[in-house]
Amino acid sequence: MILPNFNDVIDAAGRIMGFAHKTPVLQSETLSKLTNANIFFKCENFQKIGAFKYRGATNAIRSLSPEKLVNGVATHSSGNHAQALALAAKNAGCKAFIVMPENSSQVKVEAVKGYSAEVIFCEPNLQSRETTLEKVVKGTGAEFIHPYDNFYIIAGQATAAKELIEEVGHLDSIIAPVGGGGLLSGTLISAKSMLPKIKVYAAEPEGADDAFRSLTKGRIIPSVNPVTIGDGLLTSLGQMNFEIIKNSIDEIIRVSDDLALKAMKLIWERMKIIIEPSSAFAFAAMLVKPKYFQNQKVGIILSGGNIDLKKVSDFFI
Amino acid sequence: MILPNFNDVIDAAGRIMGFAHKTPVLQSETLSKLTNANIFFKCENFQKIGAFKYRGATNAIRSLSPEKLVNGVATHSSGNHAQALALAAKNAGCKAFIVMPENSSQVKVEAVKGYSAEVIFCEPNLQSRETTLEKVVKGTGAEFIHPYDNFYIIAGQATAAKELIEEVGHLDSIIAPVGGGGLLSGTLISAKSMLPKIKVYAAEPEGADDAFRSLTKGRIIPSVNPVTIGDGLLTSLGQMNFEIIKNSIDEIIRVSDDLALKAMKLIWERMKIIIEPSSAFAFAAMLVKPKYFQNQKVGIILSGGNIDLKKVSDFFI
Repeated sequence: MILPNFNDVIDAAGRIMGFAHKTPVLQSETLSKLTNANIFFKCENFQKIGAFKYRGATNAIRSLSPEKLVNGVATHSSGNHAQALALAAKNAGCKAFIVMPENSSQVKVEAVKGYSAEVIFCEPNLQSRETTLEKVVKGTGAEFIHPYDNFYIIAGQATAAKELIEEVGHLDSIIAPVGGGGLLSGTLISAKSMLPKIKVYAAEPEGADDAFRSLTKGRIIPSVNPVTIGDGLLTSLGQMNFEIIKNSIDEIIRVSDDLALKAMKLIWERMKIIIEPSSAFAFAAMLVKPKYFQNQKVGIILSGGNIDLKKVSDFFI
Repeated sequence: MILPNFNDVIDAAGRIMGFAHKTPVLQSETLSKLTNANIFFKCENFQKIGAFKYRGATNAIRSLSPEKLVNGVATHSSGNHAQALALAAKNAGCKAFIVMPENSSQVKVEAVKGYSAEVIFCEPNLQSRETTLEKVVKGTGAEFIHPYDNFYIIAGQATAAKELIEEVGHLDSIIAPVGGGGLLSGTLISAKSMLPKIKVYAAEPEGADDAFRSLTKGRIIPSVNPVTIGDGLLTSLGQMNFEIIKNSIDEIIRVSDDLALKAMKLIWERMKIIIEPSSAFAFAAMLVKPKYFQNQKVGIILSGGNIDLKKVSDFFI
């Protein structure tokens, strides 16, 4: 297995420049005081399609040869990766085929179609998803772009931490949420290459702690019936992601949904920015392990801001 | 009546430097495309206490002589000015006395008390508010800082537009919401001094259009029973504010609550930032008069982001 390194991240940064946003880094006096730390929030909720996923998708597509581009790209996703790949394909002038479960919300299906992608429905289970995708790839010749277990996806997601460190300089630690591990493994590559002494922590929902259990066992333990408000963190770790994470992660901090909700509320109310529940886990990890971060410069990757505003009040009762 | 000019704004900028935030300017490709303009949003929702009001309050307090500072400051407000004056006083080490209607929400009262201000309750009508304030001022010797009809408040609020223009350079037009006129009159001073050819528009709720009617009649028409979701825009124009506005405003654009809601939703969903309803009117004005802004560089002042998150879903049904 060939894993991306920091040179691949530098290549990725060049490829996505002018296509993905260089997102702002924000600070909050209140939240820094609350945690007795100096926190820098990398705002991927301001990224195109509202999440870091656009970085990886753009890098993956712009790494394809012209011969491959002609046939387009394909993936299975009902989340941010679907929109990211659809928009990145549109902007690169190639086709995108997105396999989505037939019970996906109408809003998400419309968003993907809005980026001119072709949506192919499957039954809402892993087997149907995979066989449907296989059929699509065979029929179209499209290149399958895995949402996280992919060399170029990882290198692309790594550009978020790279930009953060370039902007703020030295950091004592950095925290990213972990689902499939695309963002986390990329963050590890950039952070540990640029700042060899930095601590990199993952924030994982208690109700979906397959990464924590995988690290403990030394092999990938799939996520089974995960339950969490972090709906972007449900998936199991990928192979490449696991390899990178197990070699260099400092610790996976498990976070309860209650604490993530509290963190989300603090960020909404104090910073006046919209983050999705999955994004709240990274800051919440500081509330789980406050002693780790005392008097430190801490980077937090806010992964995305896609949330159904009709349901917001449910979170703030 | 001595009105502030741009030199007073420069003084104000010096006084508030290091106390108020230099707020970020954000862009949204989607909203710029939608309006066929190039929009720069000045994000006062990221200002301390979540609104531009902190600029004026800080400037007013830091303009006081040491003799006056000893007795503290006083005002009547149940809104952002109350919190702004309370925090600015705390940071300047002086007392603040805030007269609030007894039916003010508990959250707002707690916020003001949280900044160490003394809250004095009055009956929820103009007469009681004024007599209570008079008593407080007599009893304490505190300096009354009017929320908008005040030289230093206007010069302070003007620093938002000054920063915006310093950051983005030439603008064809700029839009600010109008309630009592503190932000709008300040915006006019900075914008017309820095860019003599700029058009300055006010955005006013249809259901609280006293500024529009005042301009038409050539004298201040008080706001009577205003009805709008723009709860920061209910008050009548102040004397100084009216003088400045009538001399240099290009047009007051009236905006329906429906369109302001649509604008608020677009900004929340597309920009992933939280703005309060009053802030949405300025962008909504572009939707009322789309032809004014074609192919232009437009500045929008997002005035604040204080909103009860428990009620958010009501806006997005």
